[in-house]
Amino acid sequence: MGPMWAPNGERRTRRPTTKDEVVLLGHGAGGRLTAELLDQLILPALDGAPGPMEDAALLPGSPDLVISTDSFVVSPLFFPGGDIGSLAVHGTVNDLAMRGARPLALSVSLIVEEGLPLSELRSVLGSLGKAAKAVGVPVVTGDTKVVGRGAADKLFINTTGIGQRSGSLHPSAVLARPGDAVLLSGPIGLHGTTVLSTREGLGFDSDIASDTQPLHRLVRAMSPLGPHVHVLRDPTRGGLAAALNEIARDSSVAVEIDEGAIPVPEAVASACDLLGLDPLVVANEGCLVAFVTASVADEALAIMRSVPEGAQAVRIGEVLPEGRRGRVTLRTLVGARRIVEMPLGEQLPRIC
Amino acid sequence: MGPMWAPNGERRTRRPTTKDEVVLLGHGAGGRLTAELLDQLILPALDGAPGPMEDAALLPGSPDLVISTDSFVVSPLFFPGGDIGSLAVHGTVNDLAMRGARPLALSVSLIVEEGLPLSELRSVLGSLGKAAKAVGVPVVTGDTKVVGRGAADKLFINTTGIGQRSGSLHPSAVLARPGDAVLLSGPIGLHGTTVLSTREGLGFDSDIASDTQPLHRLVRAMSPLGPHVHVLRDPTRGGLAAALNEIARDSSVAVEIDEGAIPVPEAVASACDLLGLDPLVVANEGCLVAFVTASVADEALAIMRSVPEGAQAVRIGEVLPEGRRGRVTLRTLVGARRIVEMPLGEQLPRIC
Repeated sequence: MGPMWAPNGERRTRRPTTKDEVVLLGHGAGGRLTAELLDQLILPALDGAPGPMEDAALLPGSPDLVISTDSFVVSPLFFPGGDIGSLAVHGTVNDLAMRGARPLALSVSLIVEEGLPLSELRSVLGSLGKAAKAVGVPVVTGDTKVVGRGAADKLFINTTGIGQRSGSLHPSAVLARPGDAVLLSGPIGLHGTTVLSTREGLGFDSDIASDTQPLHRLVRAMSPLGPHVHVLRDPTRGGLAAALNEIARDSSVAVEIDEGAIPVPEAVASACDLLGLDPLVVANEGCLVAFVTASVADEALAIMRSVPEGAQAVRIGEVLPEGRRGRVTLRTLVGARRIVEMPLGEQLPRIC
Repeated sequence: MGPMWAPNGERRTRRPTTKDEVVLLGHGAGGRLTAELLDQLILPALDGAPGPMEDAALLPGSPDLVISTDSFVVSPLFFPGGDIGSLAVHGTVNDLAMRGARPLALSVSLIVEEGLPLSELRSVLGSLGKAAKAVGVPVVTGDTKVVGRGAADKLFINTTGIGQRSGSLHPSAVLARPGDAVLLSGPIGLHGTTVLSTREGLGFDSDIASDTQPLHRLVRAMSPLGPHVHVLRDPTRGGLAAALNEIARDSSVAVEIDEGAIPVPEAVASACDLLGLDPLVVANEGCLVAFVTASVADEALAIMRSVPEGAQAVRIGEVLPEGRRGRVTLRTLVGARRIVEMPLGEQLPRIC
């Protein structure tokens, strides 16, 4: 969930940032600013190099094991459809699933603000435990830190997951190919608009709920498609726009999607209209995009629709046979084409 | 580093905490309050059960792999001898080492407060990268979240490590046996007093520096001792008092140490006098206690002293042939005995 960084691949050189600059909210929003922070500061400092951004990294020496980490800072802690506890399980389970891995174990690390009611902590952890149990992944280790009042906002949760890949499903953000069909497993925009509406008291949250759910079963159902599944990505921070831009860049392909094919629930559309948001940049926590060989697209859709998590799966576009590499375009309802930009990233802080 | 929880073992039942209680600073300090939070709230919520507190958990299905997680919230970010970046590497590498494992891979997850100077972030990450390189462990994946001003205090870092055990060194907190010699690899109290002095402007930090360092080489040097090494533990939060109490409890043995044998640097003693602290409860980040078969104690000490990290290793006590299980006692300089209590936990927040 969100941009991961795997320090491998080709190094790019850029001017270092100047010393009077500071971290902005947008640096954590999963868009262009996040990518710049990674490329210009984090990876150079770690002596790594910018490479494909995958949702989970391979574990050195254990080629069938993958690892993924995420810190959850969503505000508020509780929202329609979920809470920070279930989200912390689903987010990491889904990152593992996007590499074709089933979850083996989770670690859970808490940073708690002094004064948090124990009842809230218990509720969150109960939800976390229930979500892990539903997925069938054990929480094997953890850590708890408490900081003084005002030094954190209630509760942050890190989960790190270890997953195991098996069979021939080895999707990667670099594997999209010209001609691929682009599939989407369900409607977009629910998580981000729900959290924002709850936080800001906008009232939309009576009509909508976060889509937070684990996607490992959906991915397992797709495993018979094996190497025909080129890319899997859950469009979390930065939404579908960020996910497709990352894939187009990392695979050096041109992607085109149909506005009319993208399922946007009515309440999401209304909320986005009011807030001036493009549903394409709103975070999701329970759907995935799949790039598959065109010849198996119908079979893939049928398989996705056979499990509840993919019941509303649709085909939304394709990888163009040719076109500007790294570019994502949208065919609008009136037949025009517009570029889908990588979101800059400042729009929706603390959405996950 | 600090109490880990591995939800296995025998369940204890206690009264649940009442709903108007809140999280206290002491709940995160590694002492009795931390243990109570774990036993009464966290583990029941996760449907786990209280068990031995190990520094790292075994990975299900991969008996040679261990996993450990820690969130670092130390304040200030920079202190004599280290910073939150190097600490985040050493802490997790050491937790893996305490299970006899060499580090295979680290994940790094950042929670950054809006407004943090990029120069500080770069400095911390440079230190983190340097520490990881010195250990020889790759940072394979990560995550960055940014929260608004006032929603976090500058920077928190989670590291999660995967380690591999090999050979016959399989230490565990449950393996201390009557007659064991208790060894300590170096002086105590440096990290906690340094951080506290720096934070509070007490001025001791001109004389002392954190002992933060990786201990994997020291543990590797001890590996020829194999099964004679029963327990390894780095006495971090809660200090030597917490570490020994946890081992005494988990192994159901009585431990006795000699006050005169415990190396307390003069500056640490002065600082503790002034602050009203017992050096036994002050956090360390670069030493370990080892419980070994008495017959190999001299050999173990010689091995420990052969590497720089263990140059000042000493024997500080033993597991009594009989005595009250779970109790730790101190033979004082004047020949009296006093009980070394598990610290309650409120003394030193945000020390790691």
